Amino acid sequence: MNSGRTEGFSDGVFAVAITLLVLNLHAPEGDLKAGLQHMWPAYLAYVVSFLNIGIMWLNHHAMFRHVVRVDRKLQLLNLVLLMAVVVVPFPTDLVGQQLAHNLHGGDTKTVALVYGLVMIAMALGFTSVWWYVVLRPGVLDERLDKAQLRQANLRFQVGGVGYLIGTALAPWQPLAALILFGLLSLYYAFEHLPQPAVPAE
Amino acid sequence: MNSGRTEGFSDGVFAVAITLLVLNLHAPEGDLKAGLQHMWPAYLAYVVSFLNIGIMWLNHHAMFRHVVRVDRKLQLLNLVLLMAVVVVPFPTDLVGQQLAHNLHGGDTKTVALVYGLVMIAMALGFTSVWWYVVLRPGVLDERLDKAQLRQANLRFQVGGVGYLIGTALAPWQPLAALILFGLLSLYYAFEHLPQPAVPAE
Amino acid sequence: MNSGRTEGFSDGVFAVAITLLVLNLHAPEGDLKAGLQHMWPAYLAYVVSFLNIGIMWLNHHAMFRHVVRVDRKLQLLNLVLLMAVVVVPFPTDLVGQQLAHNLHGGDTKTVALVYGLVMIAMALGFTSVWWYVVLRPGVLDERLDKAQLRQANLRFQVGGVGYLIGTALAPWQPLAALILFGLLSLYYAFEHLPQPAVPAE
Amino acid sequence: MNSGRTEGFSDGVFAVAITLLVLNLHAPEGDLKAGLQHMWPAYLAYVVSFLNIGIMWLNHHAMFRHVVRVDRKLQLLNLVLLMAVVVVPFPTDLVGQQLAHNLHGGDTKTVALVYGLVMIAMALGFTSVWWYVVLRPGVLDERLDKAQLRQANLRFQVGGVGYLIGTALAPWQPLAALILFGLLSLYYAFEHLPQPAVPAE
Repeated sequence: MNSGRTEGFSDGVFAVAITLLVLNLHAPEGDLKAGLQHMWPAYLAYVVSFLNIGIMWLNHHAMFRHVVRVDRKLQLLNLVLLMAVVVVPFPTDLVGQQLAHNLHGGDTKTVALVYGLVMIAMALGFTSVWWYVVLRPGVLDERLDKAQLRQANLRFQVGGVGYLIGTALAPWQPLAALILFGLLSLYYAFEHLPQPAVPAE
Repeated sequence: MNSGRTEGFSDGVFAVAITLLVLNLHAPEGDLKAGLQHMWPAYLAYVVSFLNIGIMWLNHHAMFRHVVRVDRKLQLLNLVLLMAVVVVPFPTDLVGQQLAHNLHGGDTKTVALVYGLVMIAMALGFTSVWWYVVLRPGVLDERLDKAQLRQANLRFQVGGVGYLIGTALAPWQPLAALILFGLLSLYYAFEHLPQPAVPAE
Repeated sequence: MNSGRTEGFSDGVFAVAITLLVLNLHAPEGDLKAGLQHMWPAYLAYVVSFLNIGIMWLNHHAMFRHVVRVDRKLQLLNLVLLMAVVVVPFPTDLVGQQLAHNLHGGDTKTVALVYGLVMIAMALGFTSVWWYVVLRPGVLDERLDKAQLRQANLRFQVGGVGYLIGTALAPWQPLAALILFGLLSLYYAFEHLPQPAVPAE
Repeated sequence: MNSGRTEGFSDGVFAVAITLLVLNLHAPEGDLKAGLQHMWPAYLAYVVSFLNIGIMWLNHHAMFRHVVRVDRKLQLLNLVLLMAVVVVPFPTDLVGQQLAHNLHGGDTKTVALVYGLVMIAMALGFTSVWWYVVLRPGVLDERLDKAQLRQANLRFQVGGVGYLIGTALAPWQPLAALILFGLLSLYYAFEHLPQPAVPAE
């Protein structure tokens, strides 16, 4: 079984999940101008989650284009990864709403914790797919340098440690945790640019 | 007419339906932490329905990659199958909400029944597509072993019987029925792994 | 410009529009069992609109697979067709809701009229794409029998006349109009089966 | 890395964003007939935004079919463009709602400003992708006439100036600004028809 339709289905799920983020931008009640200014955390949460899902898609794409054979176990692991991706709009909505109410009692501790847990789930899902792809004989293009792949994954997991730290911080310093999550999305977008890790086709 | 665009359209429908499941996770009113804990049935319903749709996609994919000719009847049967798949987020929402209110009067009997009926509709839709594909000359790749295919379908229908039992149980033992539906999604995910049933390409 | 990506985009739009129909199934307030029974018009509207969009997709697919060159005008006409397809979930929601309130004052006349107008818009969109494809030199595969194509379109428009009649009936006999719309979706599904109209590839 | 899966993912995002526009058509409260007539601005906003996203897709498609190599920077720029496309349903909803309340105090100034800003963001996103594609060696098919491409982009940006003017007008003449945005969507649809700009394949 080649990877074409698995990629097509995954692309569809990524595309829908990333687009549903717009449904978190609720038209404000009452004075429109004040309401739109007041909901700035929702815009920020939109941008951070859009980058997170988008970059996860980039990595998914970069990995799967070297996959030459998809078996049922890989598809189940992929499904578990997608299960975490699809859920992202929910904590994104919570972060936007609670942060907007921060001054009068929004529960930022809980939302930072929930957001971090979903990010960890997504990272774990991706890591399990990655290791399966690398370790299972015959799944990956044989010509690839596997030592280099493992090293690329280590660099990737340096970022994953950031999500662990942020999630551990959440109950004490929720704003610091959320800022860290925002910075991590930028880190993955800009810092990892020179990480092709896989030789050209 | 080859199967490419039918698969593309079906993949799109599966991908959107599975992603809309996240819209069932409603931000709770009142105390956020208590609210998020209280809605655990919605998380469980999300996971079970995600697996159900995802594994139905896997089976759809496994079947269609051996289809070499798609006629209009097959497309109509496929459309009826998709009609059942698309509806899944609705009973999933009902299960999550009613189970959360179980202690103070949620109607779990009705939701277990509705969920079971939708699962049965999905299984019937898949089975009708399957039999059409197997029995109609020229639809399936001629090199396939049809006896093996029929046996694979029998094993598949063993699971289908589980949905019938659960649905029959629903009005008396709704929780048992819902637990059975959850176990069936795991059964299809893990137990059927070594069921390729169709020779390699 | 070949038709591949236009078909991919159109498939995506059809797939999302058909799947959004499930969002019209709102969890009922109050007693669940009575509420679910009371909303039977929403189920019926779901099935009819699902068939309408699904069969429009089948026809779109049957037409485009013979298109060998897509120009900008064809893409704009296709966009106008999709604009009508995407709007279908809205009148479907209205029909389901108003019909459920029929006994105590639902406005079925208005919803039957709106539903009919959207169906006419969809039929006009499809017809304009069809004629452009048939009449514009170089768009369609040259080997096709264009006389046969024109005749197929006439048969197709027999159905379109049904939408005109239903819409004209709507302000006087809204239920008859809605029943006619339902029958037309079945007509297109079952009666037109032997309408390949285009020679095999 | 070729452009196939990037186009597939982008097509998915465009398709979902354009289809979510229908969710802005909210079933009216109270008298249905009067309510449906009263919400005409929502229909107009639907059409204008549908054309805007649809034509942006056409341009995206026309550009990417000449892209022969996609690198990570291009994918990030594309992601930023999609971030603007996905947000369109939000200001569309605001425009429809506020314009309907115009006579009794809807805040059209704010919504015209917000709509214009999102259009500018989309135009900037597209322009940055365009320049990267044209200027980066090896990204575009070498056989293309780059001088002609640059000129096509200038014509494209004539329209972009219209969004700047409309947005600047918004706080003083919101209705004029909204009418201008509507006309611009028609301008891109009809006036730019003879703008292939890129030689045939």
